[in-house]
Amino acid sequence: MTQLQSYIAGRWIGQQPAQTLRSAIDGTVVAHTHAETPDFAEALHYARTVGVPAMLKTDFQQRAGMLKALAKYLGEHKEAMYELSFHTGATRTDGWVDIEGGTGTLFAYASMAKELPKSGNLWHEGPQMPLGKTGAFAGTHVLVPRGGVAVHINAFNFPVWGLLEKFAPTFLAGMPTIGKPASATSFLTEKMVRLVNESGILPEGALQLIIGGTGDLLDRVEEQDVVTFTGSADTAAKLRATANIVNRSIPFNAEADSLNCAVLAPDVTPDDEEFDLYVKEIAREMTQKAGQKCTAIRRALVPADRIDAVAAKLKERLAKTTVGDPRLENVRMGALASKSQQADVADRVATLSQGAEVVFGGGEGFAAVGEGVGEGAFFQPTLLLAKNAANHAAHDVEAFGPVSTLMAYGDLDEALALAARGKGSLAGTLVTKDAATAVKAITAMAATHGRLQVLDRAAAPESTGHGSALPYLKHGGPGRAGGGEELGGLRAVKHLMQRAAVQGSPAMLAAVTGESAAG
Amino acid sequence: MTQLQSYIAGRWIGQQPAQTLRSAIDGTVVAHTHAETPDFAEALHYARTVGVPAMLKTDFQQRAGMLKALAKYLGEHKEAMYELSFHTGATRTDGWVDIEGGTGTLFAYASMAKELPKSGNLWHEGPQMPLGKTGAFAGTHVLVPRGGVAVHINAFNFPVWGLLEKFAPTFLAGMPTIGKPASATSFLTEKMVRLVNESGILPEGALQLIIGGTGDLLDRVEEQDVVTFTGSADTAAKLRATANIVNRSIPFNAEADSLNCAVLAPDVTPDDEEFDLYVKEIAREMTQKAGQKCTAIRRALVPADRIDAVAAKLKERLAKTTVGDPRLENVRMGALASKSQQADVADRVATLSQGAEVVFGGGEGFAAVGEGVGEGAFFQPTLLLAKNAANHAAHDVEAFGPVSTLMAYGDLDEALALAARGKGSLAGTLVTKDAATAVKAITAMAATHGRLQVLDRAAAPESTGHGSALPYLKHGGPGRAGGGEELGGLRAVKHLMQRAAVQGSPAMLAAVTGESAAG
Repeated sequence: MTQLQSYIAGRWIGQQPAQTLRSAIDGTVVAHTHAETPDFAEALHYARTVGVPAMLKTDFQQRAGMLKALAKYLGEHKEAMYELSFHTGATRTDGWVDIEGGTGTLFAYASMAKELPKSGNLWHEGPQMPLGKTGAFAGTHVLVPRGGVAVHINAFNFPVWGLLEKFAPTFLAGMPTIGKPASATSFLTEKMVRLVNESGILPEGALQLIIGGTGDLLDRVEEQDVVTFTGSADTAAKLRATANIVNRSIPFNAEADSLNCAVLAPDVTPDDEEFDLYVKEIAREMTQKAGQKCTAIRRALVPADRIDAVAAKLKERLAKTTVGDPRLENVRMGALASKSQQADVADRVATLSQGAEVVFGGGEGFAAVGEGVGEGAFFQPTLLLAKNAANHAAHDVEAFGPVSTLMAYGDLDEALALAARGKGSLAGTLVTKDAATAVKAITAMAATHGRLQVLDRAAAPESTGHGSALPYLKHGGPGRAGGGEELGGLRAVKHLMQRAAVQGSPAMLAAVTGESAAG
Repeated sequence: MTQLQSYIAGRWIGQQPAQTLRSAIDGTVVAHTHAETPDFAEALHYARTVGVPAMLKTDFQQRAGMLKALAKYLGEHKEAMYELSFHTGATRTDGWVDIEGGTGTLFAYASMAKELPKSGNLWHEGPQMPLGKTGAFAGTHVLVPRGGVAVHINAFNFPVWGLLEKFAPTFLAGMPTIGKPASATSFLTEKMVRLVNESGILPEGALQLIIGGTGDLLDRVEEQDVVTFTGSADTAAKLRATANIVNRSIPFNAEADSLNCAVLAPDVTPDDEEFDLYVKEIAREMTQKAGQKCTAIRRALVPADRIDAVAAKLKERLAKTTVGDPRLENVRMGALASKSQQADVADRVATLSQGAEVVFGGGEGFAAVGEGVGEGAFFQPTLLLAKNAANHAAHDVEAFGPVSTLMAYGDLDEALALAARGKGSLAGTLVTKDAATAVKAITAMAATHGRLQVLDRAAAPESTGHGSALPYLKHGGPGRAGGGEELGGLRAVKHLMQRAAVQGSPAMLAAVTGESAAG
């Protein structure tokens, strides 16, 4: 049992227990949040007056070096994180996505520095363009550190990666971070931040941590700050409308869990390798992290004449998935993050079951494997089959767990119309052998998806999977998915800096951008 | 006297007069808005079902060709617009900025098509990146039309440019526009849209026009739409918080008038050419469009030991500026857009005058030149000198007219701190001869400004001026300026499209992006 603490203004604070955080495996107490409310004015002031100057004493390249060193350090201490990760319900494989996915993102952003300026903190986004006939006056663009603070509010499902994937580009951009993980799994995030701190690698003030609520923090952020949020669409909408954020035009980036789909294209028959790839992809997305990914496949769109075959194969596959204590070697799927998530998923499944057949799961007679797991937050993988795809709740209601709904379609146009019913998704997969189908479907789906995978036998051996956000690819989708954009290589760094157009004589522009005067 | 009409779903609607719009010159009635409320559901439906398909039958290159043809057509009919432009209070020179600035923006976006795909509507944003060791799986990014509608809500000060600078990149991006100009000068926008319509160049549904209020329009926009607003910071904040916009994560871009500054650097003495350039720049920004530009210089930051010299020269210059009927050849500054603006500016000047000396103007004994101008919306150029720069209202209160406030500073650091007090500005100017000063100041000011000009004798002959937004340079600033980004070349087109990451085998990605498979 650990008393968690916030790390504010260079001090660990919090001695009085508040919320009890329990192991997802067996309900034993893992940690407590703290009752003391941090002084958020102090946290912001410290970030601005200590963090910003300390960070801007370094340049892009130096900060990239620190990210790399930090990734190594955390890698060397990863077992301490895995130990806690199990109690979030994660298997070792799930923990790998979170922990080594997190350090991998640090490595990736460190390596991107080769495309950043060799010194200083001003990033010239050229070219220089003449604005007159004689070349006396020209214009160009620069990106500079905003001089403010990034407040990153994260979801419970990726306690390590969630903070690190936001921190990495923020740090490269020269901005201090105040991280606020979801309480349920904050014991793992706190451990990670303690390791960061022990490493002594980062400049003072570069990373602060809030355990518990954000209090008046969002009422105190200012024009040069940014706020990001990962979590439910409802909370994203609530935070986005915070009067102080709206009134000061503070950039607000949201990543919300969405009703992602995977389409089995009309050209794929049960005899094709791609048919099995589709089934495997659905099963993996349902069971990895116990389905607790904003990118997970919630809607499986299948040609009507193949839906029974898909259902049968999926059922078979899910039946073989051992669910239980994630520390056990034979267990393939662990628990939800908390009992409250378990109750929430059960509620949503009840809603989704209306007008749907339960192909597999649903919980009747289900028992997780392991000792003392009766008090754990386990949930059986549950596959539904919507009787009327056009009018089923799966387009609107998300069960944030190992739950997916099969939906039949007639032709590709109908599949694309159903895909768009998600009203904006983080990720989508199309399984097809046919390039013409891919061209048509991806062009259409791109308008409503942040990331799309075309899966076939050629891609499969190295596919990173439907649900995996990658450092070099954009993460974030329109509409229900929050309308945000993260990662995507250096795009994320640009989003966290301030772009300004600069005009003047070519000589002055060359001086400002640190480059020799061009024609 | 004209009965203005909205152009909705291919029809001009509105027969019953509502608001009376008067000439800024003499108060005579120019036009009426209409009393009938357009059916905004119909407007959106028409844009989605007629506009989108019609536009996407064309490709980037064809749409660029249409923009060019439209720019030519409007250029051939520009006198009809100038005629009405005078009644907005604009001189011929002011009208040029609005009207030919508008057609120039169409031409500029037409010419940018050379960097867009040669066919189709999918824009590949490469490179293709391998995501595994053998190259079987790769990722890249594409931009596609959003499939929705752009609602552009504009300010009264640029009735032509205001709509066209938003329309041009929107049209290139393959999205229909619904334009809503501010009522006060909507007679000029309506004329422009009638000309667009008469030209027959655009596909059906590409441009609709709302005269009057937006009714329930913003409650009806959907995930694939975008909303932009140019105007006051208060209205921007109000619209941004519209529940439907927040709940659906609809992109909302704001350009708000801001408290822009111009800094006379410490190195410039009254004997330098740059000293006169500074004075001219302030005077021009005060008087062009009668100071009704979101980018106008509101705060003139001057070394304390030179502020009297600047004040004296500016006073001399302003005294020579003939204010009156903008149709008269000798008139250099016209009227504000309306009597209500006149009253508003007078109120703000009263506030700004507290703790400031009125160096020039203020209105006592002022009379505009011309016949019948007594009922016009004229306002005397008014220069204030704040006694205590650190604590003056000019950092917070904007008089949206020919009004600027001189402020003394000690050293460059103090000037930069005062510049940042605008809490986010669209534009800033630094007048200096010294490259080191430019490097320091621009690097600092870039964090709080959308566009910055370094003005010296080398740049002056071709300078486009502090206040001019240009098609190739970013327009928009952080914080109080709205946090938006427009123009900036093809950046604006990207902002109006949807970006998606795409993953798959190199062969599938090549098919989707329309490019040959790369290694």
